[in-house]
Amino acid sequence: MKPNEKTIFLGPLTLFDYLLQMEAFHGSRSPGMLIGGFMVDLALRKLGPTPHLNMVTETVVCLPDAVQLLTPCTMGNGFLQVLDWGKFALTAYDRVNLAGARVGLNLEVLQGYPVIGSWFFRAEPAPPKPPFEDFCAEVLAAGQALFRFRSVQLRKALKPSERVPTGRCSRCGEFYPLRLGAVCPSCQGKAYFE
Amino acid sequence: MKPNEKTIFLGPLTLFDYLLQMEAFHGSRSPGMLIGGFMVDLALRKLGPTPHLNMVTETVVCLPDAVQLLTPCTMGNGFLQVLDWGKFALTAYDRVNLAGARVGLNLEVLQGYPVIGSWFFRAEPAPPKPPFEDFCAEVLAAGQALFRFRSVQLRKALKPSERVPTGRCSRCGEFYPLRLGAVCPSCQGKAYFE
Repeated sequence: MKPNEKTIFLGPLTLFDYLLQMEAFHGSRSPGMLIGGFMVDLALRKLGPTPHLNMVTETVVCLPDAVQLLTPCTMGNGFLQVLDWGKFALTAYDRVNLAGARVGLNLEVLQGYPVIGSWFFRAEPAPPKPPFEDFCAEVLAAGQALFRFRSVQLRKALKPSERVPTGRCSRCGEFYPLRLGAVCPSCQGKAYFE
Repeated sequence: MKPNEKTIFLGPLTLFDYLLQMEAFHGSRSPGMLIGGFMVDLALRKLGPTPHLNMVTETVVCLPDAVQLLTPCTMGNGFLQVLDWGKFALTAYDRVNLAGARVGLNLEVLQGYPVIGSWFFRAEPAPPKPPFEDFCAEVLAAGQALFRFRSVQLRKALKPSERVPTGRCSRCGEFYPLRLGAVCPSCQGKAYFE
């Protein structure tokens, strides 16, 4: 794969730089981040340039980090929405005209790429983890055939735009969005701590 | 603030570097990111060193990006959990012994810091946005008094550790976690696109 690392671009980064940033940000080289980078790139190219880019991922795993490395959309700036659906798919869309490009895996071709297939279908019992280079080789060999793309039209922009009235929780004294109930979510019993 | 920018550390970064990375990653200098950086730093120092760091933010706004810049915990690697509670608070915890340090704002002192107070309490109608330097000046003047800290014990680690069985959705043909229902969330009517 080495000869390609500095000539293949994923969004604004060379594959070489993406691999470095993946380790620095995500903490490891992972198949999900590698494939996710190509998915983000394909979605961006299919959508075309827009100053109003938003992204949606349909899983919390890996894909949010691929988006955050390759686009201006982050969790904390609101331009990335993360749905906890466990689906390995993502959409790039224009939040003004709501035109979107959704990319997922093309499951029909995975039989030809056993390393990717074993990862995606979660073979049980889990086989020994193949070297990361084996994923890279299959991903580069598969190219765009690895993905399913469709144009979509969003029902609405997923980033909330209205101001949310907040107020003091009568139980804990902290501020929270009043629409969430008479007391804050933590005091409603959802607290994750004692 | 300039004299302090290279001597104050937020987690592993100088304030100077944090401000640069804030603009590059988050897209702008924001009060939430500035204050969030100090909150992350305080939580990390109160928790102490651990190889098992996990983080929780209680809002989707700003704080997830402060965590992702200053810790190894990201959305996509699973060590950051984001609760959509609209509460400006976060917790650093050890996922093995479940000891945590939760940090929020100390609302009692905000009357002494009108720029921060106006931002946090969302004065209506919204006043002209003060220069970012005014936020910095108040945050540095307030110091640790700006925050409320408590030690907490988590009920359980928030990162799921078990493998989730997945299978093909009988409607769209894509893979999803079978525990979510007879068809995938999108086919259950939650799709965000036409």
